[in-house]
Amino acid sequence: MNRLVVQKYGGTSVGSIERIKKVAERIARMRKEGLDIVVVVSAMAGETDKLLDMAKQITSTGKDREIDLLLSSGERVSSALLSIALDSIGCPAISMTGRQIGLLTDNSHTKARIKGVDTDRSRRALENGNVIVVAGFQGINEHGDVTTLGRGGSDTSAVALAVALKAERCEIYTDVDGVYTADPNIVPDAHKMDRVSYDEMLEMSSLGAKVLQFRCVEFCKKYDMPLVVKSSLVEESKGTLICEEDSSMEQPVVSGIMNDKNQAKITIKGVPDQPGIASKFFTGLADENLSVDMIIQNVSDENHTDISFTVTNEDINKATKIVQELGKLIEARDISADPNICKVSIVGAGMRSHPGVAAKMFSALSNENINIIMISTSEIRVSCIIEEKYGELAVRVLHKVFNMTKPKKIVP
Amino acid sequence: MNRLVVQKYGGTSVGSIERIKKVAERIARMRKEGLDIVVVVSAMAGETDKLLDMAKQITSTGKDREIDLLLSSGERVSSALLSIALDSIGCPAISMTGRQIGLLTDNSHTKARIKGVDTDRSRRALENGNVIVVAGFQGINEHGDVTTLGRGGSDTSAVALAVALKAERCEIYTDVDGVYTADPNIVPDAHKMDRVSYDEMLEMSSLGAKVLQFRCVEFCKKYDMPLVVKSSLVEESKGTLICEEDSSMEQPVVSGIMNDKNQAKITIKGVPDQPGIASKFFTGLADENLSVDMIIQNVSDENHTDISFTVTNEDINKATKIVQELGKLIEARDISADPNICKVSIVGAGMRSHPGVAAKMFSALSNENINIIMISTSEIRVSCIIEEKYGELAVRVLHKVFNMTKPKKIVP
Repeated sequence: MNRLVVQKYGGTSVGSIERIKKVAERIARMRKEGLDIVVVVSAMAGETDKLLDMAKQITSTGKDREIDLLLSSGERVSSALLSIALDSIGCPAISMTGRQIGLLTDNSHTKARIKGVDTDRSRRALENGNVIVVAGFQGINEHGDVTTLGRGGSDTSAVALAVALKAERCEIYTDVDGVYTADPNIVPDAHKMDRVSYDEMLEMSSLGAKVLQFRCVEFCKKYDMPLVVKSSLVEESKGTLICEEDSSMEQPVVSGIMNDKNQAKITIKGVPDQPGIASKFFTGLADENLSVDMIIQNVSDENHTDISFTVTNEDINKATKIVQELGKLIEARDISADPNICKVSIVGAGMRSHPGVAAKMFSALSNENINIIMISTSEIRVSCIIEEKYGELAVRVLHKVFNMTKPKKIVP
Repeated sequence: MNRLVVQKYGGTSVGSIERIKKVAERIARMRKEGLDIVVVVSAMAGETDKLLDMAKQITSTGKDREIDLLLSSGERVSSALLSIALDSIGCPAISMTGRQIGLLTDNSHTKARIKGVDTDRSRRALENGNVIVVAGFQGINEHGDVTTLGRGGSDTSAVALAVALKAERCEIYTDVDGVYTADPNIVPDAHKMDRVSYDEMLEMSSLGAKVLQFRCVEFCKKYDMPLVVKSSLVEESKGTLICEEDSSMEQPVVSGIMNDKNQAKITIKGVPDQPGIASKFFTGLADENLSVDMIIQNVSDENHTDISFTVTNEDINKATKIVQELGKLIEARDISADPNICKVSIVGAGMRSHPGVAAKMFSALSNENINIIMISTSEIRVSCIIEEKYGELAVRVLHKVFNMTKPKKIVP
């Protein structure tokens, strides 16, 4: 067996015939270096939305089984086109659908979970010298029906195949050249990281880093599959390697800074301070599938308490309505909603061995007169809810305070 | 088991969301009348060409296996959309791909032949009260790879399913409302036929009647499956029934008149009159997959003969080249090609019992001073090659001579 790499190309990377040809050239070059390659492709940019839009013109409640058949066709088209492109430049290739690559899922249409991968056929195809081009985002269930894996599904396909085929690594090609210390649009000094640990990447993905889905990173961590994110547009992109923490290396205390604007706060004032009252609210929200992030509770007077919590902006109206109904029942004094907040977070595996990181963050924000509304932490993360207007300033200040600017190379 | 009908809707009939909704309404109405229905759909109009064009932008020699995966996606999209549309108006429906409907083919990608239909799953789906919406044009081979059935493939899917499921009839919905005695654009008096026999339809299809593919009619004849062609755009279209000849009924002598302009003639003069010389030409043409229609041979002098034959316009250059090369070897006197001819044909099961039909056709053409260049006949057909400029005139004359104008209803 040769060394095997699984590569995934997103919708932008295969968004036109010209781009598909470019991707084919890149793969053919790597193939010449003696690597076995399995490629997972997304639908051409815009295709999935176009298909979904047609379904919505008919009804907003199309059956999930049919939606899956509909959506899965986009990836089939790009896998056929890319394998035609590879063949046409002398690099033998074979397309495979979710079924042909053996990707078995449960029956949860539109958000199926992978149950297993049957690698018999793909191993044979590799042994016969083929590059395999897999239609991402899709599998089949026990009935032989097409299922799709939900948002970021092609990344999940790629990681699952990398694990099943015991690949050396999984490479995700996208339109950015890796994971940055902060959004370069906000912090001009931000730089691409060469290496990030699974745990750090998990925190960053859950904080809204769009470059990788949480689920994909989780999968890689579980099976210790090295993951590389790089650009398909920049030839020399080295990307960012996401892998197990390397204890032999000096860790930066803070690796990345994120600002999540998709946050809103709801405050309930004057809640009777009795056991079980708070749980009523959060059970009510959970019943409607609304996910609550941070919660704080303050005593307002002897018998009453104030409760604040955060949800995403999309959920704010639905959440407010539920809380208002429950608030009436328990005679809460006042209920207010505030969408003008954001969550600024610092993430770094080095925090484990460096106490005082949170304190340093708080004082840096305080020095800029930025009021911290809520705080939450994990072992390798500190998040603060602040007013939205201070979000970008906070990111810039923290990037500087934690010395995250790339050390300049000293020219002799 | 309810009575079962298989319906096929072509690309124009499902060419937009509005049309798909209309088709859904029609199906739901028939379903309410207690019929079990299996629907076969083509790709939305233009989709297959769009996919093929993308492949051609990469290379003109894409592998057939990949082309099949590419092209098959169009029908999957329309089957998903139509079943969503049916469900949304309260008519339970389930989409099925070629694999799910059990359509097994040989391995000839892009022109696969059907080997069998496994009806287990479709029978269960029907018993559960579903309308089944099948992605036409596609099946799978023994390796589990997607195959496509070639031109008119969705019609073939429909007929094969009708036979396998023992349907009462197979209905082909298209943009015309049936089979006409002649092209109404040429003959204003031409009328739609209520009924045509398999043999007549086979002749008409091989003469270029586009409404039904030869292969589809052949399949129906073999299994005696009644076939109805009707319009999906005109609600009250009764269409044309293609079925076994009904000997109890009075047959019109001539049922249909066709004019095939896609004909060209090649003439080789001064061929040495020796056994085996003519066969050299036609073997040479057959080796290049060129199909020759009519052939005539005349003596030109004691030792030489002239040979003329017809091919389609697309093949004329290739055929001329082959004939010229062989002509040099045998020292033929002259080789000429003439694309300005056409083939006018009359078709009618009634000819079997009516002698003199050919003679009547020849004298009708002669009365108009139309010269007949070549003639060929079958039991129920007479075809004449004439100059292309007289084609439409010939059709009009013959339509009149054979009394094919629909008898006017007598209003009391």
